[in-house]
Amino acid sequence: MKLATIRLGEATVAAIVEDGHVEVLRARDVREVLDGGVENAQDLSTGQQIPVGEVNFAPVIPDPSATWCIGLNYAGHAEETGVPLPDYPTVFSKMSASLIGANDAIAMPPADVSVELDWEAELVVVVGKACRFVDEAGAEDAIAGYTSGNDISVRDWQLRTTQWLLGKTLEASSPIGPWMVTKDEFGDIQGKEISCEVDGNTVQASQLGDLHFKPAELVSTISQMITLQPGDLIFTGTPSGVALSREGKPWLTPGSVVRTRIDGLGDLVNTCVRL
Amino acid sequence: MKLATIRLGEATVAAIVEDGHVEVLRARDVREVLDGGVENAQDLSTGQQIPVGEVNFAPVIPDPSATWCIGLNYAGHAEETGVPLPDYPTVFSKMSASLIGANDAIAMPPADVSVELDWEAELVVVVGKACRFVDEAGAEDAIAGYTSGNDISVRDWQLRTTQWLLGKTLEASSPIGPWMVTKDEFGDIQGKEISCEVDGNTVQASQLGDLHFKPAELVSTISQMITLQPGDLIFTGTPSGVALSREGKPWLTPGSVVRTRIDGLGDLVNTCVRL
Repeated sequence: MKLATIRLGEATVAAIVEDGHVEVLRARDVREVLDGGVENAQDLSTGQQIPVGEVNFAPVIPDPSATWCIGLNYAGHAEETGVPLPDYPTVFSKMSASLIGANDAIAMPPADVSVELDWEAELVVVVGKACRFVDEAGAEDAIAGYTSGNDISVRDWQLRTTQWLLGKTLEASSPIGPWMVTKDEFGDIQGKEISCEVDGNTVQASQLGDLHFKPAELVSTISQMITLQPGDLIFTGTPSGVALSREGKPWLTPGSVVRTRIDGLGDLVNTCVRL
Repeated sequence: MKLATIRLGEATVAAIVEDGHVEVLRARDVREVLDGGVENAQDLSTGQQIPVGEVNFAPVIPDPSATWCIGLNYAGHAEETGVPLPDYPTVFSKMSASLIGANDAIAMPPADVSVELDWEAELVVVVGKACRFVDEAGAEDAIAGYTSGNDISVRDWQLRTTQWLLGKTLEASSPIGPWMVTKDEFGDIQGKEISCEVDGNTVQASQLGDLHFKPAELVSTISQMITLQPGDLIFTGTPSGVALSREGKPWLTPGSVVRTRIDGLGDLVNTCVRL
């Protein structure tokens, strides 16, 4: 099943995504659907259908209790940034106000704040059940599904102190969606490609199988410190190919179009717009 | 004015703290009071009074849109951890589920997860108005008041990768309160003492005037990346004296009583209890 959060007027509603249309649910967002159990989603149907082409996608989970992000989780990306793969998952976070929908603008700050905006295509885990102190089997059971994300990063703000958070939580910058695909429908992460295109040029291309710490290991690790809640998100890290590590550091600029693509998930297409 | 969020049965309500009693407000917590403007707080009075001795304090803001934390913000603490004072504020975060009330238990994880729990007495800024791209004057105007906090840290989890978050967001660990004192009533931070006692022994004692980056500078900095919202919290960093830097690393243990004290604010008294 594919679940989305879509905008209807001033509000959002959850929807099931089917061939060519979405079916509107009696729930304000996918988090509320997960709270009631994804297996009961169909019971929430209002019968209202909207053609997919007319849908305005909100972030799949507009306001999770927590958005977790993982750094240095592909060998190629660790290498390009000049550090070894870590022994434990490197975990930081992103505030809800940083999340945008699948086709929303990436809100660049004024140039005197930063011009160093960079892309990071990422598989995002959506948690489906509350869990604490779970092993990997329990963690696997707590995963509802997957969606695409791009952990847009403001490099100078990220790297000017030891802690990356400020450069990782630019307001209205990080797309997530367009929908969550349930774990059963998505299947194994092995063999699936992840890529990022900027203005039509492929800048990142890798395999989800190359993830160093797998989704269940990430959930299990975080759950040792705090309860993960339905709707919590985990950006699982990005492969090599970011602007930071490229010749001449070709940062995103106003008008840049970022396409994030993962096999079996929907594409994100976001244009950079300076505030 | 002093504002608290208190527990009444299963719910919370906001209250004004007066001599010997609190007056219950028509608002679910201090965040809702701030949303309506702190100058209108008295208009929300229900007339119901509760003796302070009978009050069960919730975290002043139980669920802020963001809790920001600052590292290395007193020269003494930077020195004891062996790093220079940074050129920019070192910003990380803490999830809402980590916050506890002024007299709640600190929920230690099982010993096989970690035994390295440490204290960090901190002045906490409470944001009163939404603000983005503000200078220090605008930031000062956006500060509603101050409260006491203790940024309880799980040192092995904090320091095993470059990013501190997991060791800073242990569930049900970090007290904040018992109430917020508005900026006008609190006055200048200069000359006010901050201290932490563990089992009656003073382990941290410093002056708020020693803060390297001041509250308005912190608000202004964060606002360059994202809008601060009413009720957002900023833990401003801790002075020297943490267990990590002491001979023999005397971590908190089950039964340890942590008292956090700042001139002009109420005390936090929290006992460590192993889950």
